[in-house]
Amino acid sequence: MSVDSLVSCLEQLITDDLKLVEHQEVSNGATWASALQSTKDVPSHALTKTIVLKPKTAKSQTVVPIILAALETTSTPSGIAAKAVGSKEARMAAADLVEEVFGIPPTDVGIFSVNKENASKVHVVLDAALIQHNGLLAFHPSSSAKTVFVSPAAVQTYLKSVGVNPIIVDFSAPGSATAPSKPAAQKKKAEPSKNDAAIENAALIGITVRKDADFPNWYQQVLTKSDMIEYYDISGCYILKPWSYSIWEAIQGWFDKEIKKLGVRNGYFPLFVSSKVLEKEKDHVEGFAPEVAWVTRAGTSELDEPIAIRPTSETVMYPYYAKWIRSHRDLPLKLNQWNSVVRWEFKNPQPFLRTREFLWQEGHTAHMTLEGATEEVHQILDLYARIYTDLLAVPVIKGVKSENEKFAGGMFTTTVEGYIPTTGRGIQGATSHCLGQNFSKMFNIVVEDPNAEIGPTGERPKLFVWQNSWGLSTRTIGVAVMVHGDDKGLKLPPAIALVQSVVVPCGITNKTTDQERNEIEGFCSKLADRLNAADIRTEADLRAYTPGYKFSHWEMKGVPLRLEYGPNDAKKNQVTAVRRDTFEKIPVPLNNLEKGVSDLLAKIQTNMYETAKAERDAHVVKVKEWADFVPALNKKNIVMIPWCNTTECEKEIKKNSARQVNGDEPEDEKAPSMGAKSLCIPLEQPSGEDAIIEGTTKCAGCGNLAKVWGLFGRSY
Amino acid sequence: MSVDSLVSCLEQLITDDLKLVEHQEVSNGATWASALQSTKDVPSHALTKTIVLKPKTAKSQTVVPIILAALETTSTPSGIAAKAVGSKEARMAAADLVEEVFGIPPTDVGIFSVNKENASKVHVVLDAALIQHNGLLAFHPSSSAKTVFVSPAAVQTYLKSVGVNPIIVDFSAPGSATAPSKPAAQKKKAEPSKNDAAIENAALIGITVRKDADFPNWYQQVLTKSDMIEYYDISGCYILKPWSYSIWEAIQGWFDKEIKKLGVRNGYFPLFVSSKVLEKEKDHVEGFAPEVAWVTRAGTSELDEPIAIRPTSETVMYPYYAKWIRSHRDLPLKLNQWNSVVRWEFKNPQPFLRTREFLWQEGHTAHMTLEGATEEVHQILDLYARIYTDLLAVPVIKGVKSENEKFAGGMFTTTVEGYIPTTGRGIQGATSHCLGQNFSKMFNIVVEDPNAEIGPTGERPKLFVWQNSWGLSTRTIGVAVMVHGDDKGLKLPPAIALVQSVVVPCGITNKTTDQERNEIEGFCSKLADRLNAADIRTEADLRAYTPGYKFSHWEMKGVPLRLEYGPNDAKKNQVTAVRRDTFEKIPVPLNNLEKGVSDLLAKIQTNMYETAKAERDAHVVKVKEWADFVPALNKKNIVMIPWCNTTECEKEIKKNSARQVNGDEPEDEKAPSMGAKSLCIPLEQPSGEDAIIEGTTKCAGCGNLAKVWGLFGRSY
Ligand SMILES: [Zn+2]
Ligand SMILES: [Zn+2]
Repeated sequence: MSVDSLVSCLEQLITDDLKLVEHQEVSNGATWASALQSTKDVPSHALTKTIVLKPKTAKSQTVVPIILAALETTSTPSGIAAKAVGSKEARMAAADLVEEVFGIPPTDVGIFSVNKENASKVHVVLDAALIQHNGLLAFHPSSSAKTVFVSPAAVQTYLKSVGVNPIIVDFSAPGSATAPSKPAAQKKKAEPSKNDAAIENAALIGITVRKDADFPNWYQQVLTKSDMIEYYDISGCYILKPWSYSIWEAIQGWFDKEIKKLGVRNGYFPLFVSSKVLEKEKDHVEGFAPEVAWVTRAGTSELDEPIAIRPTSETVMYPYYAKWIRSHRDLPLKLNQWNSVVRWEFKNPQPFLRTREFLWQEGHTAHMTLEGATEEVHQILDLYARIYTDLLAVPVIKGVKSENEKFAGGMFTTTVEGYIPTTGRGIQGATSHCLGQNFSKMFNIVVEDPNAEIGPTGERPKLFVWQNSWGLSTRTIGVAVMVHGDDKGLKLPPAIALVQSVVVPCGITNKTTDQERNEIEGFCSKLADRLNAADIRTEADLRAYTPGYKFSHWEMKGVPLRLEYGPNDAKKNQVTAVRRDTFEKIPVPLNNLEKGVSDLLAKIQTNMYETAKAERDAHVVKVKEWADFVPALNKKNIVMIPWCNTTECEKEIKKNSARQVNGDEPEDEKAPSMGAKSLCIPLEQPSGEDAIIEGTTKCAGCGNLAKVWGLFGRSY
Repeated sequence: MSVDSLVSCLEQLITDDLKLVEHQEVSNGATWASALQSTKDVPSHALTKTIVLKPKTAKSQTVVPIILAALETTSTPSGIAAKAVGSKEARMAAADLVEEVFGIPPTDVGIFSVNKENASKVHVVLDAALIQHNGLLAFHPSSSAKTVFVSPAAVQTYLKSVGVNPIIVDFSAPGSATAPSKPAAQKKKAEPSKNDAAIENAALIGITVRKDADFPNWYQQVLTKSDMIEYYDISGCYILKPWSYSIWEAIQGWFDKEIKKLGVRNGYFPLFVSSKVLEKEKDHVEGFAPEVAWVTRAGTSELDEPIAIRPTSETVMYPYYAKWIRSHRDLPLKLNQWNSVVRWEFKNPQPFLRTREFLWQEGHTAHMTLEGATEEVHQILDLYARIYTDLLAVPVIKGVKSENEKFAGGMFTTTVEGYIPTTGRGIQGATSHCLGQNFSKMFNIVVEDPNAEIGPTGERPKLFVWQNSWGLSTRTIGVAVMVHGDDKGLKLPPAIALVQSVVVPCGITNKTTDQERNEIEGFCSKLADRLNAADIRTEADLRAYTPGYKFSHWEMKGVPLRLEYGPNDAKKNQVTAVRRDTFEKIPVPLNNLEKGVSDLLAKIQTNMYETAKAERDAHVVKVKEWADFVPALNKKNIVMIPWCNTTECEKEIKKNSARQVNGDEPEDEKAPSMGAKSLCIPLEQPSGEDAIIEGTTKCAGCGNLAKVWGLFGRSY
């Protein structure tokens, strides 16, 4: 069959708009992609691959080759294709075999090379992901110098017309055609190398690299494919789409209510700071100066003085605190704002983790006593910890920063520290600072001390107020993604998921009547309505895609619970719930729908936290000798050591735990070369036999006497 | 008594820290203020005035002069002081009389010039506002070259020590010592001139100018003294303190819920736009270009290309809409963001009304049909109207903007228009635009039209999406302040007030025992707790100030309801509620507290809206002849006319209704010189005998045939 007659045949068979383009001859996926890029009028599409395999066959039997069509991105081990046709193994067919069967060289073969003449001589295997693909597919119509764009449905229609009943193989679920299972890749223990980062057995519409093999690429794919983030044309700036912004809204809603209970009120301070005010406060601003963005022009007018965009609001706010706080009766003053700040980082940006503009809240409070300030620092730290544990299902360690790591100009900094298993690195979650009186002295925020006696000059002694500042940013979202996500994509804790459960109509086949289909879909809508009415955020996915496509889609987006409903469920008055965290299938009786779903969501929330915590706990190791320190780090641990709590020792530890690498080499996410920083001195110190014995226990860093257990690790 | 001995006497009497400074001799308040400004170590204080009056006395009687001490800012008509001592009138005492009584010239006299020797020869009258003042007072200690700073309590202690029982006069409430009443000034009908703008009879801790006399000054005072706004050191930027930001939070909470019901989701787009993207979109951006702020530097590095701060987000968002909208199944796309935008205005800034950075929401949606888009434009407009009417108690007129006034590049603009009675000007409240297909064509936001037939080239015709954008800003707050505020300050509708009711302990006198006082205050706390538990936002004001001071304080801050509780109320098992809108006193039985207060708040909300609406309605006048147009405007009306709806006529009306003034003269808020703009074509058109008769009714502007009733007015 010639290309022209094939195309006209296809046009007759399929109702889609058929599109054919010509280009130079290509020999593989890469040259094909590049040829299409330089061709006009190419619609949006996914590349495919069509492979001819020769299954292992007894010598006495005729060889029946396999023609396998798959998405270019699908990893298609030949063994799985072989198994699908009842053989044990298969290998790539030689060119002469291909010529013999199809009459063309292997590079020209496409799925449309199967025709009425050769149909009976081959097994046709289709990749399930290809069938489920949402959009046009690119195939060679028996010529590698041409490409035809057709829908997955058109492929099936065509094959039917030539008398082929293709075997559909879900390469993401080996050994099980129905129930998804954890990708085999996750069960491997050996350290994967970047070369085999491509996912072999994953859900194929989505993430194409394994989390544990190419973490930066995985992170980027998860964020973009799940619709959390869109990359923006200014480096370091990202669009937060509703799928991620809703998490921020959930955090805001919870935290805002909690701080209002503490008497905090919200306000809004300007985005701009005059250079005079910003620079007034030298010590503190020194750290920010290299990252400050400056406005120098408005319209066509040069400004008389450049104006800074706030990198944080201390200097914006505190001159006014000095004005507003006139008496001890004005204390405590507790203000917070939800805003964005700009820090023009020149380092490699990362969505949520290191961005030039980010959303956060910044609380700034003033107190009459250090005790009052300290109490609040810990109240806020507890709230931050609860955001991680209760909302994001991420375990954190509360602690105090070392002198070296504390907020510049502050008195002490408390922190919640997270842990990213894939890289074995610690990550600062949020910080609550006691600023002491340093800022109040700088900005002259002063009251008369009502408890002091009047001095000899007849004046009541002045009291510089005690200040705190505390902030939590959208970094929270990045941490949750990195901790929970897997090779199928995002995994969202129910507490912060925009969609907590998705209802998918199932079991609709060619035999289903329109009426039955409408009934099932209508019922799915009603299930979603019932759940929404019970405050369980639910969507019914009634789009014209296959259930398999929808499963992968919502798994990639991390929806905690899938509710399948089809004729079998109808008979049993149930929905079939499938958990995103365990893939467990649980029937939920319809008369217990709301409670059943709600209980499952609660279980998922708990399980996600406990799973993350077990993994984290397994990677916090106590080390008492320096010899064990770097080996522990290299096993992706964060490390607790008896520590002398000196800056000198801290710097030595960092230096001595850094790998020797060429300074120009980019950081390897999997094997970071950086030295270990002090993450925090945990509030909860080991006790019992592990307790520090003053005067006896030695610092694992320097051998001097230890004062505390310190938590160290490579970190973000 | 010499100054020195007076000071030492004062020091013995009073426990306050006493402060005395010397300066040049002064002759009045202005020279005094300036002398103190150039003197070192002057504490924060309020100036006072001490006046000696000679009451009208029968010839047979001895003249007993009045020595009156008041805040400098208190207007103290001599008639009121006279009345307080039982005389009909009084005039300024001649210098010889003052010398005779006090032994010093009038400019040296201060309240401390009253001593044991002369106490029996004079009436001492004190301004209630002086007694209630929160802070130090400045007096001359019998010498105009010296100033002593003392607390109000010290004044009373001193007077007591010299045997004087002063007469306290509340100059803000003539004829009534207890129940506050509307200031007499408001009852005047004559147009006040700016010269008598100073409030004669207002609550004195607060606003010192009359709303109807010096509106810009009044507006500034209300915003700053009520704690809504703090002026910032960058012109056109303001700090939103919790007292105003909480109103924005209330609006956000309500509107966000409503738009989510419509399927809108929130996201966040970057603050920055590259110059390339911003300038891509020439027509639309032309209007914003003169106001765009440009970042050209980060740290010490000059950026390769300047980066703009968004003045609005069309150009930020729509390139991505083109990417995200691939199919008609992606429609409608409904995104919103709560953010701040920057428009570097060079005109005179006004808090909330014209600021260089402001908070708003911007919704941007895409639809498959014009009908779908239009339906949403009106859904949003209705929500905007409800924010004004239901939350802010401000009446608005819904309408469509004229061609000349619509959003540049859009298809049509709908608006809610408010009215500011004091200036008689219209004000645009919020706008909901249908952008038509102009932007989708510019940014190539396109889908295949699922309803069109496949064309001859085999392609399905493209459909450019129909877009809307809609925005509402913190201008809302400014409008509510301007509409409702009065000479006592802010007046907040209960729906958006941070504090809806304030509990003030009353009736505590010198005879009250500590135990009784504690009981009353404790009970007030409990009342507040009860109300807060019933979701009525309540504070108990237990500060050590007089009830009168607290009344004025909370009236100035606009709290809708004051709840007084004292021994009399305790006996009757009630609180006494006082409405901010009517000053009506209503006893509320304690066993009906929550419902009683809630009902009163609902009544206040309704009454505020109805009062504002009645005033607005009285100032929307129908005019059918041009001759009546400008006179109607000059009576602070906005004007409905039968209109031809042409841009030419609109421009003529503006030109012909402008007053002839010198171009350099600043705008007079009371008598604006500007011409009348078209505010909108109201959706609700006059009917019945006022209906436009096509082909007959003439345009009041140009005499051609009228098509619609158009609303015109001077405006913000
Ligand atoms: Zn050490
Ligand atoms: Zn006209």
